[in-house]
Order: sequence, then C-alpha cells, then structure tokens
Amino acid sequence: MKYFSFDYDDAQISESKLEKSAKKLETYIKKCHELSTQDSYTEPEQSLHLPSDENLIANVEGLVGEYNLDQLKYIVLVGIGGSNLGTMAVYESLVGQLDYLTAARKPKMIFLDTVSSQKMYQTAELLNSLQSSDEFIIVSISKSGKTTETIANFALLISLVEEKFADINDRCIVISGENSAFWQKAEKLRMAKISIPESVGGRFSVFSAVGLVPLALAGLNVRALLRGAASAIDSGTKFDFVHNHSLKSAVITFIHSQKLPIHNTFLFNPRLDSCGHWYRQLMGESLGKKLNLKGKTVHSGITPIVSIGSTDLHSMAQLFYGGPKDKFTNVVYCLHEDSPIVPNSDLTELVPNIQNNKLVDIMHAVIGGVKEAYRQNKLPFVSIALPAIDEEQIGYYLQFRMLEMMYLAQLMGVNAFDQPSVEDYKKETAKLLAKI
Amino acid sequence: MKYFSFDYDDAQISESKLEKSAKKLETYIKKCHELSTQDSYTEPEQSLHLPSDENLIANVEGLVGEYNLDQLKYIVLVGIGGSNLGTMAVYESLVGQLDYLTAARKPKMIFLDTVSSQKMYQTAELLNSLQSSDEFIIVSISKSGKTTETIANFALLISLVEEKFADINDRCIVISGENSAFWQKAEKLRMAKISIPESVGGRFSVFSAVGLVPLALAGLNVRALLRGAASAIDSGTKFDFVHNHSLKSAVITFIHSQKLPIHNTFLFNPRLDSCGHWYRQLMGESLGKKLNLKGKTVHSGITPIVSIGSTDLHSMAQLFYGGPKDKFTNVVYCLHEDSPIVPNSDLTELVPNIQNNKLVDIMHAVIGGVKEAYRQNKLPFVSIALPAIDEEQIGYYLQFRMLEMMYLAQLMGVNAFDQPSVEDYKKETAKLLAKI
Repeated sequence: MKYFSFDYDDAQISESKLEKSAKKLETYIKKCHELSTQDSYTEPEQSLHLPSDENLIANVEGLVGEYNLDQLKYIVLVGIGGSNLGTMAVYESLVGQLDYLTAARKPKMIFLDTVSSQKMYQTAELLNSLQSSDEFIIVSISKSGKTTETIANFALLISLVEEKFADINDRCIVISGENSAFWQKAEKLRMAKISIPESVGGRFSVFSAVGLVPLALAGLNVRALLRGAASAIDSGTKFDFVHNHSLKSAVITFIHSQKLPIHNTFLFNPRLDSCGHWYRQLMGESLGKKLNLKGKTVHSGITPIVSIGSTDLHSMAQLFYGGPKDKFTNVVYCLHEDSPIVPNSDLTELVPNIQNNKLVDIMHAVIGGVKEAYRQNKLPFVSIALPAIDEEQIGYYLQFRMLEMMYLAQLMGVNAFDQPSVEDYKKETAKLLAKI
Repeated sequence: MKYFSFDYDDAQISESKLEKSAKKLETYIKKCHELSTQDSYTEPEQSLHLPSDENLIANVEGLVGEYNLDQLKYIVLVGIGGSNLGTMAVYESLVGQLDYLTAARKPKMIFLDTVSSQKMYQTAELLNSLQSSDEFIIVSISKSGKTTETIANFALLISLVEEKFADINDRCIVISGENSAFWQKAEKLRMAKISIPESVGGRFSVFSAVGLVPLALAGLNVRALLRGAASAIDSGTKFDFVHNHSLKSAVITFIHSQKLPIHNTFLFNPRLDSCGHWYRQLMGESLGKKLNLKGKTVHSGITPIVSIGSTDLHSMAQLFYGGPKDKFTNVVYCLHEDSPIVPNSDLTELVPNIQNNKLVDIMHAVIGGVKEAYRQNKLPFVSIALPAIDEEQIGYYLQFRMLEMMYLAQLMGVNAFDQPSVEDYKKETAKLLAKI
C-alpha cells in the first residue's frame, strides 16, 4: 500500500542540521518500537500497541455485533476532547460535511460535546421523532467518568427521551476506565460497556474502543483504519531518516519552533477539517507545558492553527503572506478524487481555463499557486500528499501525527502525556458549581 | 435596548495608557461618524452607512418578495470569504449547528465555498431529490465576478441539476458589482441580480445585499439585524471612552499586539463559532500587511485564533495556561438562554453539584472558572457578555467588530481595506490553470 509522500524541500533547514537533531531521538525511537510490540498498557507510549491488539478488535466487534445495524439511523456520541475528536476526524474525513443532507448513507453521527441548550433540544427532538429505539444508539465516553459536560449531556438526553423510549438503557454504550464510577453506574443501569486502558490518554486514544466502537457502529471499516495505523508504526518506529516521516516531521517542527511560535496545518480539502482540530489537541496538550521534564519553568509550546484551503485563502492569505513571519506551515492535500468536470458554459467564460477541467485539478492549481507564493515570500513549509482519503490512509495519517508528537515532546524535553494546567480552571469551576 | 457589556478589569493596562492611545483616534472617529451619515459609497468606511440605507433594505425586500417562500426548503449560497462568512455568522448563531437534523425549521442554508467534489455531489443529489424548483434558490456572490471557486461551483451545480429543473435560471440570484462581467452574464441568462457598492470590501459587506438577501430568504429578521448594527455605529462613532466599546477594544488590542502576537476569541457558545471565523478574516486581512501607510516594510498583523468553550478547554486549555504567554484573549458569551435542567439521576451523582441545575448555569460556572484561572496565571483578557443571541444582538456585535478593526488598523498605521498580498498566490494559480 502506498501512503502519503512527505516533501520537505521547502523546509529551509539543512540536511546536516536535521540529522543532528534526529540522532537525539535514536534511543527513544527504539523504546517506542519495543513498547509497540508488547501486549500490555502500562506505559503511555503503549497506545502504539492498539492498532495490532487483536483482543481489542475482537472485543469491539463483539460489542458492535450485538446490535442490528440495519435499522440504525443515528449514533449520538456524547464525549468531549480526547473522547470525540479522533472519531470526528475519521468520520468527517470519510462522509464529508454535507452528508447529513443526503438520505442515502446511514447511520449518521451526531456529536454532543460541550453543554449547549440548543443542541440538546435539537437532538432530543430528533430522537423523539424516530419510531423505535432501534433507530439510535447513544455512546457516552469519559475515561475518568467525571467529565462535567459528558455526564450532564448524557443524563439530560436520557431524561428528554425516556418517556417515549422506555427501554433506552439498552440503547446506551458507556466507554470508560474499568474501575471508574461511571463504569459501575453503567453496570447498575445495565448499559453495555467497554473499557479504555488506564495508560492511554485521550489524545492518543483514537485507536482504542473510544474511536473504534462509534466508527464501527457507523459502518466504517475499522480494520482498514487499524491497518493504516499499524503501517505508520512500522515505518515510524525505525531509526531511518529517509522513510520515517514522523521523525522527519518532528525534527523539522522542533527546529522551527525555536523561532516560529505558530504551526499552521493548511488542509486543502474541507473533509480534513476535523483532522486539523484533532491535531490542535494533540499539539496543544502535548507540548504546551509550564514545566519541563527537569521541573524547570519553561512555558513551552507551539500554537497550532488549522486552515482550510482554498476557503481560508479568502480570509487568511493576506496575513500569511503579508503579515508577521511567525508561522511554520504543513500543506496537506489529497492527490486523487472522483471529481465532476466544470462545464463549458456562459458562466465559466468568466474565469480563464476552468472550463472542461475537473474540480480536483482546479484545486491542484490553487495548491501549486499557494506553494509558489510561500517560496517567493521565503516562508518555510512541508507538503503531505495523500493518495486518497479512506480509512487506511486516515489511520496512517493520524498515527503518523501521534508518533510525531511523542518525538517532538522528547526533543522539547517535556512530558507528552500529562496536562497538569487543565486543573487550573477545573478547580475554580468546581467551586462555582458548588455555589449555584 | 440593552446590548453587550464589555468588561476590561483584567486587561492589565492602566487607564491612563488607554486614554493616551484613544486620543490618537479622535479625528478618525469623527471622520467615521460623518461618513456613516452620508448617503453614498465612495469611501471604504462608508460600509458604516449600510445599516441605515433605506434604499438598500427596500431593494432587498423587493427582490426577496418576488419569491414564494412558503415552499422554499433550501438556499444554496455559492460564495467564499467575504461573500459567505458574514451570512454564515448570522445564520449559524441563530439556527445553531444541528438545525439540519430537525424537520421543523425551513428553509435551510447550504454553503458552497471552496471547490469540493464530495460537497458538490452531495448538494446536487439533494437538489435532484426535490420535487420542484420552487423548493430551492441558488444565490451566487462574487463582487469581482472572477472568483474561481464561486464561478466553478455555480456553473457546475447548474449543470448537475438542469436536466431535472429546466427553469433553473429563474431560481438563481446573482450578487455582484454592477459593472462586472458576472452582472452582465446574469442579465444575459435572465437571472435575478442585486449589486454590491464598489467601495464596500468583502469583509465589511455583511450588511449589504451580500448578507441581507440570503438571510432574508432564510426567514431571518434582517431589519432587527440592521437595527443592532445601527446602534453599534451610534455608540461606536462617538469619541467617548466609556460608552464606545469599539474604541476601547481597539486600543486594548493594539497595546497588547505589541507583545502578544496571537488574539484568541474564546466563544463560550458553539452557536457563535462562525462569528469567530468571520472575525478571523476581518482581523487577518485588515491588519496583516507587508507595508504600512507610509510604504515602509513592516509585516504587521495579529494572528486571530478562535476557541469554543467549553469544547476547546478539553484540547487547548493546557496550552493556554501552561504554554507560552503570547496571547490576548476575548471571552465572549451569552448571559441568558432558554435551557433544560439536568435531572437528579443515578448518572448525575458522578459530578458534584450539576443535579437540578440548568445547562446554561453549568456553562457559567465553567466561564467563571476559566476567568479565574486566567487571573491566577496573570494572562490578560476582556469579557463580552451578550444578553441574548438574536438578530439585533448579532448585528450589534458584528458592527462593533468592524469599527474596532477600522480603529485598530488606524492605530497600527496600515490600510484596513486592501489585501495586496492575496495576489501572490492568485497570479501563480492562474499560470498553473493555464497549463492543465
């Protein structure tokens, strides 16, 4: 299988500098490789074992197999952050942004993350319009089982539809840590449940039950997704600068981070928008650290931004080309797509050379124009060209990014797997909740 | 009418410093006030006249009145950048993100901006599933009439549905500059059309026909929208530091921009997401400039990022609190909303103090927690608290931001209204289009 190509001709860093930084990762890459082959989850890097964990896929398929998916129309995913961003990335890459408008493909996924009155009312109205509870499944995900938004949304949605659907607990799946209070509640309420390994953090959990259960319910090919991820681990845990894209990308990003505080993932396909949002969490939480591994105050981090081409060329290109030179850019796109052809008509005479061309070829001309303008403005970038957008390619891409982030954190000398500052607002919120 | 409150107690800038900067704007504010009262569009600041332009609203209502909206189910808006971001901001603020799932409210708006094969196929499939062309209207917007994506999408969509709907030109509205080639094509093809004043740039055009026509077709109250905008002009073009929020916000943002390269609009309501994206263009294009007004190379600009609370607390809070101190934050939220109450149930025992509380009050506890954590980490922010989310309030908010941006550009010494660097990629794209 051919995966994406990674082009760093315009990264503006010498090969010798890259190789010098890469060497610092030799031991850690070896460690990651070893941990990926072990059938356990005691170290955080063992999320690398998920794509080859046969027990896991058997458990997921066993659980999903208990449902009759023929009648299923909607999956409501109640989860936030690491509990929904990976699933959203895979789902939206495959079905696109307007899937909800077309009747053809079922089931469709609805994401409830933050607390929103309007979204809650709209979701409850939709479920109450269905004939039978066989037409929906509610999947609720929280590793700790203490996530305010998830518990509030899950309990509230149940309360708003249980009058119509008395057997609603049968239609709920809880995904949580095996010893959490949420797990025990699910048992008491006779909801189906499946666990997340304790050592696997939210932002590295897309290939655990967190992502696999909802994606399998939605009818997507999770085995192909895992095959792509396993291939990314295979090539990404070898100390081989030519073929290890995660290593290359980490080193380039690390070197630029010393002068460029902003990382722009410029995705030239609206289907990939949620992959960008998933990466925001991955980079934001893994690298944004007050303290380094030695306990020194560093306030490290890179601010990830997501741009969609060509949409954001019409809003952000002026800033990117004319504004401060404080960004390192990843241009990401898909090479081939089944594509309609722009007709030869009165209207298309308005723009030279679009007539009789495929939409995808027009997009490629835009991408070529964007790259050339980056070069002329002397702005550094790398290009990632996917051969297709399908489960296997997205699996490869997401796993490539997770390895890249482990390597980047290592180079920056910070813990990729914790998020201590998140407590800052949670403590204060809890105090205020006690007062209302 | 009460509009939002603006709280800058945590902006970390002394009152005397603020007033000193504000004074620099006295003449310009007076100029803006005068231009807002003139019934013409020769200066770019005269977008400030749009909300009180009675001819404009009469034209828009005349055009929209020609359609029978009872049967209308879908409006396809073909436009990109300044031609769709404002409309999307108003529309999504009001109908929310899951409106497409519920049958109740019609018509629904579909946005085609960039070229996307999947979106094009899905939109064509939807239109072809309708019984009559009375059920849809296609609005195509391009001031120059030369926007590659818009012309390609518009022509392609027509070609994909004209076999079923022979009279499709009757269902198309073109919004363009009055002398553009697009305008002439519309005339030739007997499509309805309405013009955009030459001096009103895309990012300042939401209250022109660009925004008003699709929003009125969607059944929204455009007169209330304009009333809110007119109020923002009324208070925002007085040299009065206490009541002029645009002035205050511009001065605070300007002072922080000298050390903080990133501006974070942290919107604590998912309905406001598109207001954030609209603001990205407004800030990105207005301030991101290679040259200042004197022709000196400055590479000025602030990078706008958009965060959604509480969603992004679960992905970006670690970076915001622990990472580099390079951001100035606007916390934006709505005080009151019709809201369901979280039940007292087995599940809600998992999180202390959420039982029997409204969702909106839980969100307010989160917002309070977030603000307190900003204070503890000594990170500067201002708060904008909307009393409600409706047409009038959104009209006020968007106009407040447009005035703020004119003042900010003035303080930074750059032209708020041009976007010369956008040509950088357009030229190269045109060369590549000629080759395919």
